[in-house]
Amino acid sequence: MKTIVQKFGGTSVGDPDRIANVARRVAQTVRDGNQVVVVVSAMSGETDRLLGLARAFNAQPRGRELDVLLSTGEQVTIALLSMALEVEGIDAVSYTGGQVQILTDSAFNKARILAIDEEAVRQDLDAGKVVVIAGFQGVDEAGNITTLGRGGSDTTAVAMAAALKADECQIYTDVDGVYTTDPRIVPEARRLDRITYEEMLEMASLGAKVLQIRSVEFASKYLVNLRVLSSFADGGGTLITTEENIMEQALISGVTLNRDEAQVMVLGVPDRPGIASGLLGPVADANIEVDMIVQNSSADGATDFTFTVHRNEFDRTLEILKALSEEMGARGVQGDKRIVKVSIVGVGMRSHAGIASQMFRALAAENINIRMISTSEIKISVVIDEKYAELAVRTLHAAFGLENSPQSA
Amino acid sequence: MKTIVQKFGGTSVGDPDRIANVARRVAQTVRDGNQVVVVVSAMSGETDRLLGLARAFNAQPRGRELDVLLSTGEQVTIALLSMALEVEGIDAVSYTGGQVQILTDSAFNKARILAIDEEAVRQDLDAGKVVVIAGFQGVDEAGNITTLGRGGSDTTAVAMAAALKADECQIYTDVDGVYTTDPRIVPEARRLDRITYEEMLEMASLGAKVLQIRSVEFASKYLVNLRVLSSFADGGGTLITTEENIMEQALISGVTLNRDEAQVMVLGVPDRPGIASGLLGPVADANIEVDMIVQNSSADGATDFTFTVHRNEFDRTLEILKALSEEMGARGVQGDKRIVKVSIVGVGMRSHAGIASQMFRALAAENINIRMISTSEIKISVVIDEKYAELAVRTLHAAFGLENSPQSA
Repeated sequence: MKTIVQKFGGTSVGDPDRIANVARRVAQTVRDGNQVVVVVSAMSGETDRLLGLARAFNAQPRGRELDVLLSTGEQVTIALLSMALEVEGIDAVSYTGGQVQILTDSAFNKARILAIDEEAVRQDLDAGKVVVIAGFQGVDEAGNITTLGRGGSDTTAVAMAAALKADECQIYTDVDGVYTTDPRIVPEARRLDRITYEEMLEMASLGAKVLQIRSVEFASKYLVNLRVLSSFADGGGTLITTEENIMEQALISGVTLNRDEAQVMVLGVPDRPGIASGLLGPVADANIEVDMIVQNSSADGATDFTFTVHRNEFDRTLEILKALSEEMGARGVQGDKRIVKVSIVGVGMRSHAGIASQMFRALAAENINIRMISTSEIKISVVIDEKYAELAVRTLHAAFGLENSPQSA
Repeated sequence: MKTIVQKFGGTSVGDPDRIANVARRVAQTVRDGNQVVVVVSAMSGETDRLLGLARAFNAQPRGRELDVLLSTGEQVTIALLSMALEVEGIDAVSYTGGQVQILTDSAFNKARILAIDEEAVRQDLDAGKVVVIAGFQGVDEAGNITTLGRGGSDTTAVAMAAALKADECQIYTDVDGVYTTDPRIVPEARRLDRITYEEMLEMASLGAKVLQIRSVEFASKYLVNLRVLSSFADGGGTLITTEENIMEQALISGVTLNRDEAQVMVLGVPDRPGIASGLLGPVADANIEVDMIVQNSSADGATDFTFTVHRNEFDRTLEILKALSEEMGARGVQGDKRIVKVSIVGVGMRSHAGIASQMFRALAAENINIRMISTSEIKISVVIDEKYAELAVRTLHAAFGLENSPQSA
């Protein structure tokens, strides 16, 4: 008998009819011979309704009482889903984060899970019950209600799966899995059957918003098999797992596109130790996150320093750099908002040389100029002109044959 | 420094503006130098909204999960009121029934309070905080969420006042106190400054719906000073307390009117042991509650047996009695829905003879025929024709001088 944790988000439990649908899906999983723990979010719109009430007293609600307020959202859902399961003839019992003892730190509004007492859940499962748990919430050592921050229900599900050593943690969303790239850009984009944690983390951080990064990190740390599926359609979804569990490993798993960045350059900086920290220190102090960083070595004692920031921070960054560049005796500051970052991701590149040159060759064949390059162990990113965004994604998707299922490695 | 428990019902916290009003009132009580515990209900309409969601799955929702659902109503209010108090510059902390450990039995939907752990509340009060507690809810030994049933927030407030040995438990409602009778019938009706628990219990059970009977019983048992006040108007309200605390005791405290009853009679029942149980047993078995019961002794070996039931049960009761009356050889069954019960209530009648005859004389002077009489230690009730209802109430109110404040006893 397998133990399966199923997580349903706000859209999947958005009204009583949808909750009844979820109950039918859970009931089927039980009838298939599994022990099931269900983690649910607040009904869609409910969190915003509660925030609206709180804003009557504080434009930016936060702190302990906000968590007392918001945690009612999931509590409503667990009660309703348990009732819906009863209609399906399934014996169910609901738990709030406090009742199941999802112990967190005391960082209200963005708490982190420290431990889960899975004993009661295990007993209920062994007694033939479905256990319905409120996502997104926990309780600190002193008994205060905490919430995990946006997307926290995914984390609850993965943490519960880890605590129970569940066979699989299924995250039901409004997409039916993780794709090789955005199907709106490349119609041939293929749903991946399996993908490694590392690849999923790179894809998520690069803009493929299917899962919360934190829940994937958690799954990776505790080796939880994580599956993304659609609440509204059938299909096996995408399993996110360890490299060892993936028999047929492609060189490249996906192509991602990020339109949120902007490029800034400081030109002709006198080349001496400490330029990088001298330039980036003040930027970091202004709470601006820097993504890609490139520094060219120079022949004439001066160097060009290039990096990317979020487009929303572009103007502030330029302002800071202009002041700095004068102080440092640089030649000037330039910037460009009309760029995108295109990346290929795949654990296959660890063991295969030549992936980078294959990528650059494919882009060159389409006359796409590369403005920046950055690489990690399982990812290569390039910055290019915005106008080439879709062309670059289509070109790379085809160049690495992503429309075809991978062959055995 | 006094400790005061203040309870605000659903109408008083019906929207953010009203919650802000409550916060101002609480803040004033704090600034007047008191330690304050606030008990709140769900925002008006919220419980019905939640019940509506539950009815999607069960026409008559009940059991454990209903309490998980409904308890979110008060949890929303405690968070919002705590935020509103912060706006007033008051340090507040909220507790759900489970957090403050209002321990109840496991009778979901109608649980009874067994114990309260007031230690944390006492510490918060001593640290200068206002403690905001969710009414209506508790937790059983196993950690399940329970609710106390309708009106349970009053009980929470009184129980908390008892546990803290509070100086006063103030129940804020939409009326400004307890009146000598219904002011819509008698414009001269006077707000009572003080009334005993026993009188309040009689008045409540006779149809003066200001407080839940259970909360008055609780207050009486633990000698909690209970005050009924208006959330929307100023004024001292009515203090419900022990007889010893009432210096100026009137003979009679109030006149009540109950229009919900109907009278049934079994005529000419052969007078032998066991008639009462023979007639009332089957009625009780049908779950029909009987109120007043009168049996006349007879000269000719037959007796008339009269009692009252709720008007909604009139037809069912007549049906049962018709079958019984044939079996028992009675002369017949009669009934009348067009009757009312008028009562006078007052602890003064314990020590003063002649109250009953004074009452009957006053009614006779207005040609009001008395159909049934029933008395308890502090109450005399009569059943009369419905058409005399208002006249009887006005007559008795005047006969006992209720429009005037009582003199020292």
